[in-house]
Amino acid sequence: MLPVLVVHGGAGHIPEERAERSTAGVCSAARAGYAVFQRGGSSMDAVVEAVTQLENNPSFNAGCGSVLNVKGEVEMDAIVMEGKTLASGAVCAVRNIANPVQLARLIMDKTSHACLTAEGANHFARLMGVPEVTQESLITEYSRMRWKKNLTPDANPVECQMGKMGTVGAVAVDSEGNVACATSTGGILNKMEGRVGDTPCIGCGGYADNQSGAVSTTGHGEAIMKVTLARHILFHMEQGQSAEAASDLGLAYMKSRVGGLGGVVTVDPQGNWAARFSSKQMSWAAVQKDTLHYGLYTGEHVTKSIAEPQ
Amino acid sequence: MLPVLVVHGGAGHIPEERAERSTAGVCSAARAGYAVFQRGGSSMDAVVEAVTQLENNPSFNAGCGSVLNVKGEVEMDAIVMEGKTLASGAVCAVRNIANPVQLARLIMDKTSHACLTAEGANHFARLMGVPEVTQESLITEYSRMRWKKNLTPDANPVECQMGKMGTVGAVAVDSEGNVACATSTGGILNKMEGRVGDTPCIGCGGYADNQSGAVSTTGHGEAIMKVTLARHILFHMEQGQSAEAASDLGLAYMKSRVGGLGGVVTVDPQGNWAARFSSKQMSWAAVQKDTLHYGLYTGEHVTKSIAEPQ
Repeated sequence: MLPVLVVHGGAGHIPEERAERSTAGVCSAARAGYAVFQRGGSSMDAVVEAVTQLENNPSFNAGCGSVLNVKGEVEMDAIVMEGKTLASGAVCAVRNIANPVQLARLIMDKTSHACLTAEGANHFARLMGVPEVTQESLITEYSRMRWKKNLTPDANPVECQMGKMGTVGAVAVDSEGNVACATSTGGILNKMEGRVGDTPCIGCGGYADNQSGAVSTTGHGEAIMKVTLARHILFHMEQGQSAEAASDLGLAYMKSRVGGLGGVVTVDPQGNWAARFSSKQMSWAAVQKDTLHYGLYTGEHVTKSIAEPQ
Repeated sequence: MLPVLVVHGGAGHIPEERAERSTAGVCSAARAGYAVFQRGGSSMDAVVEAVTQLENNPSFNAGCGSVLNVKGEVEMDAIVMEGKTLASGAVCAVRNIANPVQLARLIMDKTSHACLTAEGANHFARLMGVPEVTQESLITEYSRMRWKKNLTPDANPVECQMGKMGTVGAVAVDSEGNVACATSTGGILNKMEGRVGDTPCIGCGGYADNQSGAVSTTGHGEAIMKVTLARHILFHMEQGQSAEAASDLGLAYMKSRVGGLGGVVTVDPQGNWAARFSSKQMSWAAVQKDTLHYGLYTGEHVTKSIAEPQ
């Protein structure tokens, strides 16, 4: 059953013309993350590689392709967590960084802190030799178009955000049974300057514990925060629920309690995994043994050999 | 049993010469918060008032009196949460604001977001007409002395932080059974610029849910984050544990799992409450009916009528 890696490319409603590249992106990221295991990497190495691929892919709302805040700027959030030590690293509202997930990992590995924000995160990046990139290099024509559209008086950013695509993330368990998660996002469309969502918040955007499993979440951040969704799902797993059942219980609770929709990828230390969502769609992919799994619509689950060409 | 309000002034080791003013400060804040009930205020009104008093008191590490970051500056974190709606508001790494807890509440009340950070939080404060204050007005001689001492090569900021005093916070339940929490901090001594600790992170620095109760935490932030301490305690209460037993279980788990010490104040919707800590000391006070309760050392629990002079 081990190792396994599961990625998501965001919950919501993916427009038909973007569905194919979204599916291709998560499949490619899952393959890249899984290849890390084959080179002897850990679950943390694997989730960071998968999320880096998704950040670099302009089709997703993370890294290049992030949505813009109300001022037309990119401010990004990311988190990583490892289940063996419960150590985590996060950045919030960071600018001019190509791969926030890698900066989050550096915070975990190289500081005594768990989260750095805004200019402080950039200062640390410079200390670590992480290059700064221009705002322009992170902004796509598509995200600029959506930003402008949402500046009109009748726009509804929350609805529009859920109507498109969200956060990216990954969970994994390696052959030693160590679980890890990583999540990265540009946040919510036309958000206020300095808005911090669920993604960098431990227990909300992700959580990992070798005693239960790992979760990465996507959806409306403020709803996910209200129910600390990732931690909530793992409490169900601690009480004996499967990864799939616990994910469904967590998502159902978020829907009934605060009316929020979203999606999750979940794994347990034995290699059982789930990709579940209450939104209309969520692009996801998983690799386990020699098989690639992926889907986009509720109930859709395609499998093929990873030996097959992409 | 209702209403009740419980405050803490931080877990750690309070030097003997500062013990008296620490106890006086939490007692005064508890009285002020409780008086809000007598004027018809809600549990949210009460916890914000109590924490405002502690922020304004230079004896505590929040607002005026905050510890300094490595650059000698004050950057503050705060959160509020109400149990009826699970709504919350938070600020992280905010500067030049006298009462971060009030700004956190404005974010909850006036925006669709749950957290604003750094300059974005200050921008919102200006929109709301919240006055900016100088860095100097938030810095005490004591905090500057500690900052300088910790710049020496052999200093250990984590140890020194735990050796002094921490975060402030409050929980309350009003006569309608609505619970709320508020927590505010200057963070950890000589922290990196932009460091975000547990306080503004929902489920870590605080959590409130009318179906179980409310918790505000203090201690070593990175340890509290690893175990999402506030949410962890409320999961125990959901499973039938009392406020006191759940608090002890949460603190014991944090100690055994990640070696972290800290303290909490906890309340349930019926008005049962607890002030518990695994650190050497925690200054705390509670008011329920006509009685003021307070303590500082393990096992210390003084009661007196609130009619008695302060």
